[in-house]
Amino acid sequence: MNILIKISYDGTNFYGFQNQPDRRTVEGELALGVKKTLKKDTKIYYAGRTDRGVHAIGQYANFHADTTIDIGNLPKVLNFNLPDDVSVIGAKYVDDNFHARFSAKKKKYRYVVYRSRYRNALLFNRAYQYPYELNTDKMRSSLACLLGEHDYKSFMGRNAIVKDTIRSIDSIEIIEKGKFLYFDFIGKSFLKNMIRIIVGTALEIGNGRYDETFMKEVLEKKNRKSAGPTAPSSGLYLLDVKY
Amino acid sequence: MNILIKISYDGTNFYGFQNQPDRRTVEGELALGVKKTLKKDTKIYYAGRTDRGVHAIGQYANFHADTTIDIGNLPKVLNFNLPDDVSVIGAKYVDDNFHARFSAKKKKYRYVVYRSRYRNALLFNRAYQYPYELNTDKMRSSLACLLGEHDYKSFMGRNAIVKDTIRSIDSIEIIEKGKFLYFDFIGKSFLKNMIRIIVGTALEIGNGRYDETFMKEVLEKKNRKSAGPTAPSSGLYLLDVKY
Repeated sequence: MNILIKISYDGTNFYGFQNQPDRRTVEGELALGVKKTLKKDTKIYYAGRTDRGVHAIGQYANFHADTTIDIGNLPKVLNFNLPDDVSVIGAKYVDDNFHARFSAKKKKYRYVVYRSRYRNALLFNRAYQYPYELNTDKMRSSLACLLGEHDYKSFMGRNAIVKDTIRSIDSIEIIEKGKFLYFDFIGKSFLKNMIRIIVGTALEIGNGRYDETFMKEVLEKKNRKSAGPTAPSSGLYLLDVKY
Repeated sequence: MNILIKISYDGTNFYGFQNQPDRRTVEGELALGVKKTLKKDTKIYYAGRTDRGVHAIGQYANFHADTTIDIGNLPKVLNFNLPDDVSVIGAKYVDDNFHARFSAKKKKYRYVVYRSRYRNALLFNRAYQYPYELNTDKMRSSLACLLGEHDYKSFMGRNAIVKDTIRSIDSIEIIEKGKFLYFDFIGKSFLKNMIRIIVGTALEIGNGRYDETFMKEVLEKKNRKSAGPTAPSSGLYLLDVKY
C-alpha cells in the first residue's frame, strides 16, 4: 500500500529538514520512526524541505509499505517511535502512483510576526518579535507586484543552487490578529528563503525605510543584494499542502 | 520607586516557580535578572506562585528600587538579563504601598485542552492533548455548582499545607475554538492544583464516565479522593491579574 502521512514539527531543535550524517534532522528522525514501526528501511518521499528552524503544521510524506497496522492507529504507533517535537497527525491510503512531492498542487505557508516592544517567553522560537510600527496597507500594496509568475531571483538565498528561478505565487494575504501579523502565502513551490526574504523586505516597507514601490524595484533587479534582510526562520510555518 | 512588572514564562524547563537551592526556578531566574539589572539584591513580591510546568502570560511582581533606567526601557534591560523562557512584557510605577500579592483583586487562568486523537509536536508541553469525545454542555452545567464561595477541599492537591480551604470562584467559562477547548477561571485565589483537579473532573464528566451531578457530589465530600485526576500542568496558563 501507498501511505500518505501528515506531519507537524517544531523546527527549533533540528539541524534543518534534510538528512545529514551526525545531525538531528526532521528527515532523519522520521526515517528512524518509520523504520522502527515497519521493522525495515523504507524510502520516504516528502512534499518539500523546509529551512532550518522552520515549523510545520502540515508537512506530508508518503511511503510504500505492507503493514497490518490499522491506518487509523498508524499515527499513534508512529508517534510512539518519534521524538516529542515531530508528530504524525494523520494517515490515509493513496493511489500507487501518488508522490508527496510531485503530486503536490499548492503549498500554504504562514509567516508569524509578533508586534511588541518586548519579547514574550511563550513565543520564543515561534514568532518574529518586531518592535517597530508597521503600516500594513503599504505592505499589502507593495506585495501585489509579486503575484503571478515571475523570476524571483532577488528573493532567493545566496547559497541556493537552482538554475530556474521562475516561480508563481497565487496569493499573499496579510491578516492582523491582535498583536500578531500573519503573512499567508499560497503557491506551487518557493525558492530557498524566498518567503523569508519577501517578508523581510515587506517589513522594511512597512516600517517606512522604503516606500511601496521598492518591492517592484527589487523584483526587477534580479539580485539578492537589492532585497531586504531574510526574516528569521522561527516565524515560518508550512501550514498545508493541497493535493 | 515601587515598580510593577508583568511577566510571561514557559513553565516547561523550570522546576516550578518558587525558589529552591540548586534548582532552576522562575523566581530564582527573576531574582538573578533583577539583581544584574539593579546591581543589588532586591526583594521581589509576586502575585502568586504557579505549579511546576504551568505557564504565564500575565504574572506580576513588584519591587522597590532607585534606578535611572527609563521605565519604558526597563523590560528590555531586564530581558537582556533573563533567559529566553522568562520575559518581562511591561513595567510601570505604582503607589508605595502596592503589593503584587496583597493588592491583587482577581486572577484569570486558562486551561487549554487540544482535542485530537493524535499529538501535535507544536503543542508539546503547551496544551493537554485529549483523544476522547467530550460533551461540552454536560461539562458546562456540571461546573455551575462551583461558582461562588465554597470549601474546595476535594479539589486541593494532597501535599498542600493550608488550613482554610474556602475560596470563591467568580466565573468558569468553556470556550470552543476549533480543536481547542479553553476552560477560563476567574477568582481571587485558588488552592494548589485546584484548577487542574476541577478540569480533570470536568473531563471525566464530559467523556461520559460520570454524569453531571458528579461535580456537586465531589464538592460536598470534601475529600480529594472523590474527585477526578489532576489534569497535566502543561495545559495551564496564568492569563492575567486584576489590580
